[in-house]
Amino acid sequence: MRVLLINPNISDSVSDLIRAEAQRSASPGTQVEVLTARFGVAYIETRFEALIGAYAAAQLAAEHCARADAIVVAAFGDPGLGGLREVMPVPVTGMTEAALASAHLLGHRISIIAISQRIQAWYREVVEACGFGPRLASIRALDRPISAIGGVQQEHAQALKALAERAVAEDGAEVIILAGAPLAGLARSLHGQLPVPVVDGVSSAVRHAETLAALKPGRALRGSFAMPPAKPHAGLPDAIARLLDSSR
Amino acid sequence: MRVLLINPNISDSVSDLIRAEAQRSASPGTQVEVLTARFGVAYIETRFEALIGAYAAAQLAAEHCARADAIVVAAFGDPGLGGLREVMPVPVTGMTEAALASAHLLGHRISIIAISQRIQAWYREVVEACGFGPRLASIRALDRPISAIGGVQQEHAQALKALAERAVAEDGAEVIILAGAPLAGLARSLHGQLPVPVVDGVSSAVRHAETLAALKPGRALRGSFAMPPAKPHAGLPDAIARLLDSSR
Amino acid sequence: MRVLLINPNISDSVSDLIRAEAQRSASPGTQVEVLTARFGVAYIETRFEALIGAYAAAQLAAEHCARADAIVVAAFGDPGLGGLREVMPVPVTGMTEAALASAHLLGHRISIIAISQRIQAWYREVVEACGFGPRLASIRALDRPISAIGGVQQEHAQALKALAERAVAEDGAEVIILAGAPLAGLARSLHGQLPVPVVDGVSSAVRHAETLAALKPGRALRGSFAMPPAKPHAGLPDAIARLLDSSR
Amino acid sequence: MRVLLINPNISDSVSDLIRAEAQRSASPGTQVEVLTARFGVAYIETRFEALIGAYAAAQLAAEHCARADAIVVAAFGDPGLGGLREVMPVPVTGMTEAALASAHLLGHRISIIAISQRIQAWYREVVEACGFGPRLASIRALDRPISAIGGVQQEHAQALKALAERAVAEDGAEVIILAGAPLAGLARSLHGQLPVPVVDGVSSAVRHAETLAALKPGRALRGSFAMPPAKPHAGLPDAIARLLDSSR
Amino acid sequence: MRVLLINPNISDSVSDLIRAEAQRSASPGTQVEVLTARFGVAYIETRFEALIGAYAAAQLAAEHCARADAIVVAAFGDPGLGGLREVMPVPVTGMTEAALASAHLLGHRISIIAISQRIQAWYREVVEACGFGPRLASIRALDRPISAIGGVQQEHAQALKALAERAVAEDGAEVIILAGAPLAGLARSLHGQLPVPVVDGVSSAVRHAETLAALKPGRALRGSFAMPPAKPHAGLPDAIARLLDSSR
Amino acid sequence: MRVLLINPNISDSVSDLIRAEAQRSASPGTQVEVLTARFGVAYIETRFEALIGAYAAAQLAAEHCARADAIVVAAFGDPGLGGLREVMPVPVTGMTEAALASAHLLGHRISIIAISQRIQAWYREVVEACGFGPRLASIRALDRPISAIGGVQQEHAQALKALAERAVAEDGAEVIILAGAPLAGLARSLHGQLPVPVVDGVSSAVRHAETLAALKPGRALRGSFAMPPAKPHAGLPDAIARLLDSSR
Repeated sequence: MRVLLINPNISDSVSDLIRAEAQRSASPGTQVEVLTARFGVAYIETRFEALIGAYAAAQLAAEHCARADAIVVAAFGDPGLGGLREVMPVPVTGMTEAALASAHLLGHRISIIAISQRIQAWYREVVEACGFGPRLASIRALDRPISAIGGVQQEHAQALKALAERAVAEDGAEVIILAGAPLAGLARSLHGQLPVPVVDGVSSAVRHAETLAALKPGRALRGSFAMPPAKPHAGLPDAIARLLDSSR
Repeated sequence: MRVLLINPNISDSVSDLIRAEAQRSASPGTQVEVLTARFGVAYIETRFEALIGAYAAAQLAAEHCARADAIVVAAFGDPGLGGLREVMPVPVTGMTEAALASAHLLGHRISIIAISQRIQAWYREVVEACGFGPRLASIRALDRPISAIGGVQQEHAQALKALAERAVAEDGAEVIILAGAPLAGLARSLHGQLPVPVVDGVSSAVRHAETLAALKPGRALRGSFAMPPAKPHAGLPDAIARLLDSSR
Repeated sequence: MRVLLINPNISDSVSDLIRAEAQRSASPGTQVEVLTARFGVAYIETRFEALIGAYAAAQLAAEHCARADAIVVAAFGDPGLGGLREVMPVPVTGMTEAALASAHLLGHRISIIAISQRIQAWYREVVEACGFGPRLASIRALDRPISAIGGVQQEHAQALKALAERAVAEDGAEVIILAGAPLAGLARSLHGQLPVPVVDGVSSAVRHAETLAALKPGRALRGSFAMPPAKPHAGLPDAIARLLDSSR
Repeated sequence: MRVLLINPNISDSVSDLIRAEAQRSASPGTQVEVLTARFGVAYIETRFEALIGAYAAAQLAAEHCARADAIVVAAFGDPGLGGLREVMPVPVTGMTEAALASAHLLGHRISIIAISQRIQAWYREVVEACGFGPRLASIRALDRPISAIGGVQQEHAQALKALAERAVAEDGAEVIILAGAPLAGLARSLHGQLPVPVVDGVSSAVRHAETLAALKPGRALRGSFAMPPAKPHAGLPDAIARLLDSSR
Repeated sequence: MRVLLINPNISDSVSDLIRAEAQRSASPGTQVEVLTARFGVAYIETRFEALIGAYAAAQLAAEHCARADAIVVAAFGDPGLGGLREVMPVPVTGMTEAALASAHLLGHRISIIAISQRIQAWYREVVEACGFGPRLASIRALDRPISAIGGVQQEHAQALKALAERAVAEDGAEVIILAGAPLAGLARSLHGQLPVPVVDGVSSAVRHAETLAALKPGRALRGSFAMPPAKPHAGLPDAIARLLDSSR
Repeated sequence: MRVLLINPNISDSVSDLIRAEAQRSASPGTQVEVLTARFGVAYIETRFEALIGAYAAAQLAAEHCARADAIVVAAFGDPGLGGLREVMPVPVTGMTEAALASAHLLGHRISIIAISQRIQAWYREVVEACGFGPRLASIRALDRPISAIGGVQQEHAQALKALAERAVAEDGAEVIILAGAPLAGLARSLHGQLPVPVVDGVSSAVRHAETLAALKPGRALRGSFAMPPAKPHAGLPDAIARLLDSSR
């Protein structure tokens, strides 16, 4: 089985973190491949940056989907996920919805630990759009400048752990999600150090992608996740144009 | 005052409808300008098409915002609106949120009349993300093939009116929104023929854009609608890159 | 165009503030007229006072509606608005719902700054009845005695600004509404001094009333905002009795 | 113990129905008294009529509260209830909130059977303001002209029973509320004829009023149900003016 | 009339408190009887303990229901209530839902004062399952070891009162529920000492049980509170087996 | 890895279906074991039956948890799940929450196909308690007598498929859950025959249990899913008593 993870940002250092955790968490026999966006920003904190990342991810997914059994949008916030689910021939998931699926099985009230103050509003919108708003105990975030996005978990490990502890003590969190691809693997290194279960987006997404590929629930031929109806288009990248024409 | 309307689709015939209704509804002294996306699809019905339209609209907005007093995303569903609101130097609104603002002042339960079955799920998601889910009485839509997107309101006027009548009689609608830029102007031609108030997206968006420009509520310098924090980027169109760098 | 603003309280000093801001914010060609309740209290803070103000406003509206193109209930909390919308021959709006309509176009999370502690619970009920509960970041209010209701914005300008700043910093407000007719005009004088957009009820209501009058969405002939069915009545003021009989 | 029931409408025939059911359902030792509004309409179906009934009920309550142990607003929809709860020296309840309190103890999904189509939207708003919206299975209503409001339960008994049966079979109702003072006593005469528990507003209100008077939970001295803060007023009926001044 | 109260815990000292308050609050002519669980824990704080208490209560209810006019599950949290309502031949209520019914008639925002930190999450789930989540201002709880469950209200009376005062001052509580059978009677002894109405679960449950028995709303023969359909069973206590077979 | 599935009903024929599907869906190297309740009913349709099944499942889980890596409550409705999650030393999931976790990754609006009319209300309560109420498109159920619970999927396969098709066509379902252990394996045999993805509870639960055991998110030491605080108990089965004492 081949799981394709698409980093919708231009940061190779984060792609390395994603790849390492994906390989550690994949089942025997699963191959993971990580792609990095060709254009965009270093890391997405806002709706506008997510809009860019969604388009960048869509191009990569269109180009590479033919050789994947499942696809993961490998940024917390899942830019472009709903759209990709309509057009991809294989199951697609994202780090946010996969982490929420795991957390949902471990407790009722969920807190998210994030890397920047600004990112919180966007995360909240995504969680609410998933329908998990009422289960969100809090989002807590670092309030420090990020010197290098690939090093944020090393640089701020104690602060991130402290945020999780406060989420448990003050917000009633029953499960912690360590959010953001730059934190991939941190849940593993904090194992046993927090008083509630801890969930990581990359490992959850890889395992759930495997499950979807294994259980073969079938593709949507009707409803809002079926292929968009065929219609005129112009000026689109070839791979996207071919995808859209495949529904004719 | 200059209001810029951006059609995130490639359909010039729909841009013509938008322009005509915008000019009819603008206040004296307001100039309206309508731009058409350089790439994308004929009309957006799905999340994936909205993802494309959002990026196309973002490029046009970045290129032309300097000479506008307010900007309108001129497709129902408001692709890219949240992101544009973060980065544009002037107020931005969209047809959905503007129509909802008008409808909110006219009744409690709102029904939306749409041009295709498929488009309904995406509209519902957008309305819910605006927080108007509990006020949505129904979405009703044509169930017929669309031969030419610019001619849908002529071709199907009676069917659209009948859908609105059923929304009132069966769903308890207290206000009707005729949704989609291809229906721009239809509310005006149906005046007096429906038993509840009728709202049009283009005219609502133009008038509300004028109001925002006139009342000068101020720009967000903090919170989730302030400019994204400066960070590395690569491969972006020049106008977008300049916008992002303007926050440095 | 003539917009009639009804102050449902007995305070002429507040009517003066309403008139001044209404004139400043109206479009060229719009005449504004402000009426003051003949009975009631100095300013409404509670449900019981709102019940009185609603009846006082209804009498004035019934007497004067014939010469108006649109009517505004000019107290935050909109006493009597839903009822008036049923019976008035022209569009009616209120300061709360109009301010919410403006705020909805500027950001997602909205905070309201109010003049007294007691008034907050009533405001919250009204906002929730409008369906905007989930978008309410907070209500913050002065905690000081009000020596003269017409002078509250002069006397407490710094405290009101400080409340708005705390709403942004601590509650995540993306838009601020300065609530209450006694604060009419304060948004204008605070222009540029707050880090998020600021909305005023009177100017929003005047502009939205103009828009409703201009777009002519049509009157409700069916549903819950149509005229009440004819039925026996007794003991009512003449103007109200005539209104109710007009549906026969 | 003396329970005062205030009919906020001018219909003596409905007051008779209220009185009869109140006497049948009161505990031994409880005296019931029913007052009829001096002005208003025959029966409230709309927000505007409720605005009038609220003011009429407030006058009667202010005049007569001194000799009551508890007060009931005896119209479904509870016009003025929230305001009266602030100013009355004894517990106050209404037919809607009392019927909901009873229904809440009998099942989860509640349907309301009403006397007219038009009345449904107002009932729904009141139920939602009580926080019972998610428990409302449906509101079903007669669709026939009402020849005399005091005779509606005789004239339409079979149709009302059929509506209740459909609410159970088609809407999943687990409890039925027969709504509206004109239906007072109907639950009693339908006893054993419906397949789920049936609740009546008058008897629920009388019994719950007795319970509140007996358990003596105490009066609100703080929060939004305490007396309104003292402030200038003018032109109010004497009894209301005295009530408001009592908080000085 | 005979009201049967079932303490789903093994604590006789708490049963004594329940009995005393039930007798004080019952109407003349009502006999109250209190039963104590034969197996289980000293007091329920968690879902697992509630699961045990529900089964213990079900056995007692099945054995003793024939001689009761109404049954009360006499632990806050109402373990087993929904299930018992399906199978009991008489009305059943519980301390939580009864206290909520009383509180609902006294104010909108409700705070619950509880005896332990751990118990809060379970209480919140029960309140939300009742549909009262949006009306819950807060749950506040003692943070001290409980030396003897029957003595908690004596030992911690001042701390409990202080929690209630903070709920009013800081959380906006308009009504206080003193939760938990170990606090039965405390509302009575705090009479006049708190600035908002105070509700007790045992007295509310007894009075509402009387009302349900008196008003005779009828038993559910259809819907989700009718008897479970007959089906094979094995290994059940005799009284429960007989109950289930009674639907054949 | 060893996954223990507990059928909280007495039906060995259903345990056989559970075992067969669990074995088909487990990863290589996973051993599945299925236990059948020693007391209870043939299949749970109601809250009262769930109360019994929860206690029966708790006894089996307490007796056998020491040799499991993860536990599954193998009845849709998940009787006892929340309680077991507090006391078990390994991850626990249930068929409902696991099926919802899978469905959540495949579409937004979810319909559940069930085996009996009566079972629907209980399923709805469980889904709402999981927080998935807003994503539930519908529950549709067979309306026919069940001759043998273990044969329901053979006997009614066409009717079940037709219900799923109606859920898609009429309710807007984007994902179908075939609910109830008696339907274990049906999703597999309907593969490719429905126009949207189809989810099965047993296979979802087994795969998610494996994922939880593999990712090792850690056990709750604080919050509402930690072990219940130690306290007196009496009369409990040995295995349960030992579990509760293990927190001392």
